[in-house]
Amino acid sequence: MPDTLPADSVGLVETQFLTVKETLTLDCGRSLPEFTLAYETYGTLNADKSNAILICHALSGDQHVAGYNSMEERKPGWWDNCIGPGKPFDTDRFFIVCPNNLGGCKGSSGPNTLNPKTGKPYGPDFPLVTVRDWVNSQTYLADSLGIQQWAALIGGSLGGMQVMQWAIDYPERLRHALVIAATPKLTAQNIAFNEVARQAIFSDPDFHAGRYYEHNTIPRQGLMLARMLGHITYLSDDAMREKFGRDLREGKLNFGFDVEFQVESYLRYQGKSFVDRFDANTYLLMTKVLDYFDPALQFNHDLSLAFENTDANFLVISFTGDWRFTPARSREIVRALIAANKKVNYAEIEAELGHDAFLTPIAEYHGVLNAYMDTIEI
Amino acid sequence: MPDTLPADSVGLVETQFLTVKETLTLDCGRSLPEFTLAYETYGTLNADKSNAILICHALSGDQHVAGYNSMEERKPGWWDNCIGPGKPFDTDRFFIVCPNNLGGCKGSSGPNTLNPKTGKPYGPDFPLVTVRDWVNSQTYLADSLGIQQWAALIGGSLGGMQVMQWAIDYPERLRHALVIAATPKLTAQNIAFNEVARQAIFSDPDFHAGRYYEHNTIPRQGLMLARMLGHITYLSDDAMREKFGRDLREGKLNFGFDVEFQVESYLRYQGKSFVDRFDANTYLLMTKVLDYFDPALQFNHDLSLAFENTDANFLVISFTGDWRFTPARSREIVRALIAANKKVNYAEIEAELGHDAFLTPIAEYHGVLNAYMDTIEI
Repeated sequence: MPDTLPADSVGLVETQFLTVKETLTLDCGRSLPEFTLAYETYGTLNADKSNAILICHALSGDQHVAGYNSMEERKPGWWDNCIGPGKPFDTDRFFIVCPNNLGGCKGSSGPNTLNPKTGKPYGPDFPLVTVRDWVNSQTYLADSLGIQQWAALIGGSLGGMQVMQWAIDYPERLRHALVIAATPKLTAQNIAFNEVARQAIFSDPDFHAGRYYEHNTIPRQGLMLARMLGHITYLSDDAMREKFGRDLREGKLNFGFDVEFQVESYLRYQGKSFVDRFDANTYLLMTKVLDYFDPALQFNHDLSLAFENTDANFLVISFTGDWRFTPARSREIVRALIAANKKVNYAEIEAELGHDAFLTPIAEYHGVLNAYMDTIEI
Repeated sequence: MPDTLPADSVGLVETQFLTVKETLTLDCGRSLPEFTLAYETYGTLNADKSNAILICHALSGDQHVAGYNSMEERKPGWWDNCIGPGKPFDTDRFFIVCPNNLGGCKGSSGPNTLNPKTGKPYGPDFPLVTVRDWVNSQTYLADSLGIQQWAALIGGSLGGMQVMQWAIDYPERLRHALVIAATPKLTAQNIAFNEVARQAIFSDPDFHAGRYYEHNTIPRQGLMLARMLGHITYLSDDAMREKFGRDLREGKLNFGFDVEFQVESYLRYQGKSFVDRFDANTYLLMTKVLDYFDPALQFNHDLSLAFENTDANFLVISFTGDWRFTPARSREIVRALIAANKKVNYAEIEAELGHDAFLTPIAEYHGVLNAYMDTIEI
């Protein structure tokens, strides 16, 4: 237990809550009569409110993106290496906001929160939302903080999709868009992996059609399987070879189904520990948000038309070892922006790790972020 | 129901059985007091028994590799496009043998057959076997047919591993080795996918620790998940895009968890139909056989040393779209053979489909097979 926090940490932070007592109409046609967003902020909003950054989280992320929620917390927020004094998203300059998305499980309205109509957890009755719904809900957070225009929107993976949607739907409300390790839409293979993850959760007898809260159960096995599978797609084949190779945990084969190879041990650990911190209904919902994202769809499948009214400066970043959302997918975004005559910088970072590289402090990557962030006027 | 079979079919075939009443000692240290191999044969063994080919099957294969088991059978054997009169493995020239491997579920001794000691199905008591064990068991089949030396051994994927093991362990018993879409050993990522598939089966409450036969259940959900996942790894991202794209089954999103995208429908169908024809314990065993294969291990991780005593001519074939066992893996085999001064031909076939390409009649691929098979003297 540390008695001091690192000097470059944003320090102790508390989750805050915004409850909006207005009806939010969703893409699915249903609506939420009211909703809550849990969020954290770091740094100080300046007088003319021109230094605000919104961080958008990915599938398993939440509002706790930097710093510590208690002195006892061993691990800081999920993107702490990027956020703090002197870090790429410098809290000495910027006021940084990160919400937990609608449908999440860390305090925002979602399957594990109470449905005001019934007084019970929403569970499977929570509507399936879209990236556009998220962006709409996030405008209420901006309004509540008095932020008319974000200096920058930043997100990796599913977070990058939210950044693009903001740029498309609310072009006047952001100046810079950082789209990292993202894609303009999922491929059939991406959807296929998500579908297997969903079926794993549905198959768990403790799932109870999503009403497991009422049964005091958790679909542990299903969510564990989903996470194990997800994890394979976050790491590259090369990174796994580098990390585990064919190393045997006990140095020899046991000819049984207990853990033999180190990679099995790692995956089981990742799967099991995820169950303790995440909600299965939220996982299901998040995979659907991913599957549905396709902003070019209403523009005759022409992404450049989708970006036509966008005013933001873009920084697009991809990672060579990322086979979930490959650099080719990021280049589709770049080409669409160029075709639409928009300002875009693109960096393809050499990184063996895979999709998860966007969360790691690779020197070249953070160098690109630092250089770009320095260009942002506040 | 056809009243005639195609002219280039081997026609109606019956599975035969060889029961060996001798103890087979296995790599795991256990032994089988006796064992049965189910097998099929096509064509005619010539007088000096020099025209025999052994086909080795892969994870979900079996002995029924060509022709029809009945006039009512709608689909022929799993590699029918390669085996028959005038086909690459020409039954007018060759006598072709294909066994179901030990641990299989189509008549060979395996988890779903009776343990002679107990009179009950082996279930989880069937020992975990290795590619080397399979090859040893296959020598009994060769002996029983009077085949001292195979004209060729042929296999794709896990089948290719058996071909390599034959060449290493019984160099005097084969003249040609066709190793197709294989790998000298699984990567950590390959093992990781297998581990998720296994955990899916273990998690199914109908699995009953592998004794589901006695409970009159089948771990349907678990095996379905395993197959869905496997199927993703058999197809390339490009092939899935080509085949399904982001097509919606009903032309619109339904904002629910029923099938929305065509690829989901396809995967569920593949998963469900597999359960009707395959055994979960066999699936578990097969994934372990894959994980364990590493013939270079006893040769100080030098595959060329493993091949040192090999006399066979090799044909190694890989497919560009195969990300399960990439062309780079096949080239490792080729380089090891070259380093060991062996005769090897290598073809890298342009094929978008993915790993499953080895089962399809791609013109260039079959052209390579035809040209190579023509060089085999009988």
